[in-house]
Amino acid sequence: MARITLGVAYDGSGFCGWQSQPSACGVQDVLEAAIAGIAQLPVRVHAAGRTDTGVHASCQVVHFDTASTRPISAWVRGVNANLPETVRIEWAKEVDATFHARFSAFSRSYEYLLYNAPVASALMAKKSGWFHLPLDCLAMQKAAGYLIGEHDFSAFRAAECQASSPVRTMYQAEVTQLKLAENKAYFQFNFSANAFLQHQVRNMIGALIYIGKGAHPPEYMQTLLQNRNRTLSPPTFSPHGLYLVGVGYDAKWGLPIREYKAIDMNKNLSVLI
Amino acid sequence: MARITLGVAYDGSGFCGWQSQPSACGVQDVLEAAIAGIAQLPVRVHAAGRTDTGVHASCQVVHFDTASTRPISAWVRGVNANLPETVRIEWAKEVDATFHARFSAFSRSYEYLLYNAPVASALMAKKSGWFHLPLDCLAMQKAAGYLIGEHDFSAFRAAECQASSPVRTMYQAEVTQLKLAENKAYFQFNFSANAFLQHQVRNMIGALIYIGKGAHPPEYMQTLLQNRNRTLSPPTFSPHGLYLVGVGYDAKWGLPIREYKAIDMNKNLSVLI
Repeated sequence: MARITLGVAYDGSGFCGWQSQPSACGVQDVLEAAIAGIAQLPVRVHAAGRTDTGVHASCQVVHFDTASTRPISAWVRGVNANLPETVRIEWAKEVDATFHARFSAFSRSYEYLLYNAPVASALMAKKSGWFHLPLDCLAMQKAAGYLIGEHDFSAFRAAECQASSPVRTMYQAEVTQLKLAENKAYFQFNFSANAFLQHQVRNMIGALIYIGKGAHPPEYMQTLLQNRNRTLSPPTFSPHGLYLVGVGYDAKWGLPIREYKAIDMNKNLSVLI
Repeated sequence: MARITLGVAYDGSGFCGWQSQPSACGVQDVLEAAIAGIAQLPVRVHAAGRTDTGVHASCQVVHFDTASTRPISAWVRGVNANLPETVRIEWAKEVDATFHARFSAFSRSYEYLLYNAPVASALMAKKSGWFHLPLDCLAMQKAAGYLIGEHDFSAFRAAECQASSPVRTMYQAEVTQLKLAENKAYFQFNFSANAFLQHQVRNMIGALIYIGKGAHPPEYMQTLLQNRNRTLSPPTFSPHGLYLVGVGYDAKWGLPIREYKAIDMNKNLSVLI
């Protein structure tokens, strides 16, 4: 029996989230079928994070156990040949049986991409959130600062969230504005935490946008945290701008996860924005 | 009768190209229907450039004539309300009846986005071309230089191209490499010309990639131009990385087209790449 771990990227637009569903519309469903086609045996994959319907991943990490012996390249090229083009295996590595994609992870990083302009983006329709009114970047940056550290995040927890505790430790909460021509901008929101509650990022984005549009001062974020009451918090924001961009593991596992950098001035895609 | 010009952006993934089709799968079809819904009269739109199936536009320009009097905002917000989210009207302006979206344009600019990595991109599957072997940027830059100026572009002309002449003047032909982690990169190819032949950009990309992978030296581009023979040239490359990014008009028309810049270091979307 070998334990194989995979780095997986996907465009979540066409899936009903990560998790396997009876209708087989989850990313997990197509991935398990693609791996089984190479293993010639059924497999069950375990992921670092369960993403919602419409949420994307540039760096999901999964593992599975198999009795099938295949060259490591078969778990990349072979599985990719069985996948739709919106899901790609980026790398594969055999790991010790004590590794677990979910339980060995000490952090998850999410990025939210928000297009801020009077007219929505045709080219980024399913790849970014959209807000049409001007947003105050400094106010959102200050508000995001209140999220850092260990907090009870009940204010941002979905009613159906099954986590045993609402306490999480936020390592990073940053807001970056990418100004475009005229009154257009992209905002990047970067969050890293030990783990996230269900809908937590989308709910925090909802609150940050309320603050950004001037409905509340930055300190409102503190009030929400202290209230610990989802029903007193702003609504959940769109899933389309959300990306799972990194998972943290101890270096001893030797996983080829590139260090995630929220902003790298050498990376730009002017055509899309 | 008023002549209205519109700036239109679209994700071409779900369309069979710009042009109206009997099955109504063209961008033109959904745009004419959306405008007619506001005008309450049928309209015929004329575009600056006809894009192929799967080709995108961040800056298509169209015009139409209508007897319906509407506030200019209705041609933006009203039409957008009738369009799928993958097509957006960016701006509208009433123009003199001597303006023509196609015939008044003195230049078109296209960008081709190519992902160069061993594994294709899940997130950019329909938004970029992909090539898996390493590419020599300097060789492609040198080869692109041979395209600048007035040439007979028969080597890059589709068999079904209906243009009366294969001669075009290329103002810009640039190749830019955006290096990512490890052995991954994006290449941006930027072309501006008075006009383009059918499939010309995709055919030039095919030739540049042959040169980039080392199959031929940069001077091969000169040979292809001199041969004036499509059947002696490399194959047409994928439409998915192609974007109509700009159309040039005399400033007298006062169209709100932002100047297109191929590379702007203030614009970057690290999450996608």
